[in-house]
Amino acid sequence: MNTHSSNRFEDPERRGVYRAITSRRDVRSQFTAANLPDDVIARLLAAAHHAPSVGFMQPWEFIVIRDERIRRDIHQNFERANRTAAESYEGDRRFLYEQLKLAAILDAPINLCVTCNRSTPRGHGLGWHTMPDTPIYSTVCAIQNLWLAARAEGVGVGWVSILDVATLRRSLSIPDHIDPVAYLCLGYVSSFAQQPELETTGWEQRAPLADLIHFDRYGEIDHNQARLLLTSLSCDPFIPTTTGNR
Amino acid sequence: MNTHSSNRFEDPERRGVYRAITSRRDVRSQFTAANLPDDVIARLLAAAHHAPSVGFMQPWEFIVIRDERIRRDIHQNFERANRTAAESYEGDRRFLYEQLKLAAILDAPINLCVTCNRSTPRGHGLGWHTMPDTPIYSTVCAIQNLWLAARAEGVGVGWVSILDVATLRRSLSIPDHIDPVAYLCLGYVSSFAQQPELETTGWEQRAPLADLIHFDRYGEIDHNQARLLLTSLSCDPFIPTTTGNR
Repeated sequence: MNTHSSNRFEDPERRGVYRAITSRRDVRSQFTAANLPDDVIARLLAAAHHAPSVGFMQPWEFIVIRDERIRRDIHQNFERANRTAAESYEGDRRFLYEQLKLAAILDAPINLCVTCNRSTPRGHGLGWHTMPDTPIYSTVCAIQNLWLAARAEGVGVGWVSILDVATLRRSLSIPDHIDPVAYLCLGYVSSFAQQPELETTGWEQRAPLADLIHFDRYGEIDHNQARLLLTSLSCDPFIPTTTGNR
Repeated sequence: MNTHSSNRFEDPERRGVYRAITSRRDVRSQFTAANLPDDVIARLLAAAHHAPSVGFMQPWEFIVIRDERIRRDIHQNFERANRTAAESYEGDRRFLYEQLKLAAILDAPINLCVTCNRSTPRGHGLGWHTMPDTPIYSTVCAIQNLWLAARAEGVGVGWVSILDVATLRRSLSIPDHIDPVAYLCLGYVSSFAQQPELETTGWEQRAPLADLIHFDRYGEIDHNQARLLLTSLSCDPFIPTTTGNR
């Protein structure tokens, strides 16, 4: 067995990784009322905690929110921010925006706020002299780990970014030195949509991947070279064929 | 079959997701000279391209860097930034820092710069009126997707954050409206370390997960409640037992 394949996962495990990645959805509409068992929540938090972090600083923290009153506060925060956001659109786009369901704060059994402590002493500052946002990047890696683990568990996750941050801080008593990075809704779902809802509703399309690849320097886009590089995707058993892949 | 388990992956696929998450490493020392085949690169880029993005804006772009001269430029950039970083430490910590290998820009067969276009018209601004950094968050989700897919393929990834960003922009002709978010080294590896190198070398330890969990409000840390929530992890077949889980 050569070096390449010796570290590669066997097909079922490898398929699991790609399946989680390609069938993960930002869920808003399909939450059921079923509770999430503790062992599932524990695995999701452990998955987040195994994210990479600059200097191994592990800047993430988790606020598990079940309290009905707090969730109602945050739902109101969302409603206000969403009305303001709607007013920035006109005509058909405004109509389309108002049809979208963009949060499920009260429908999902658990809300989770993932925060970042940029000033934690952990990590001794390694790796962020030059890139001061790396603690935030590490926290987002933790969120994506959790999101993919949730998909494997059959648990939907919706990321709510339409929130006034100052008000959110007050609702959750988040001090100034801590950054709230994501406000997530979690729960079992009736089903996972085949495509992102923003694609189905016509809000936006998936971009062709070949348009996003540069060679050696930014701006060096060579569509032929990119298409050649991506040829195998059209019959790859791990990546579902959508018009946006090539 | 109830709703919970009907959307859950079967065990081998679910195990694949957790295995990728828990055995993924930030690789610097174990790269082999073997080339990455196009189909593997294609799958990794497709995995990144299936990340969530606010408003489905897909703000990420990828610069695939094979050119030796450009990589030597960037290696020099790293060497300078790393010397400056080393000078910020003293005594034993300085000695330890200087033993660490923190980049493999010339060892890995491919370098990949992942950038973010905050001003793409895609997504029509949905979801980032209130949180203007969400395009960056989306890009980091793409990076973590790629990192986990790479682990499943037996491919190592190392994220180099010790780089002067202005110089990096010049080396890769990155215009002002595009943000370079990650500079990655990719290649097959002889092996994946059991633990993060920063843990093995004593730079930093994994934090106990229970210390990072708050209930309903930030600051409401209840160690008993947290330990109870995480009890199952000590015998969970998907999460390797390390002192830092509970």
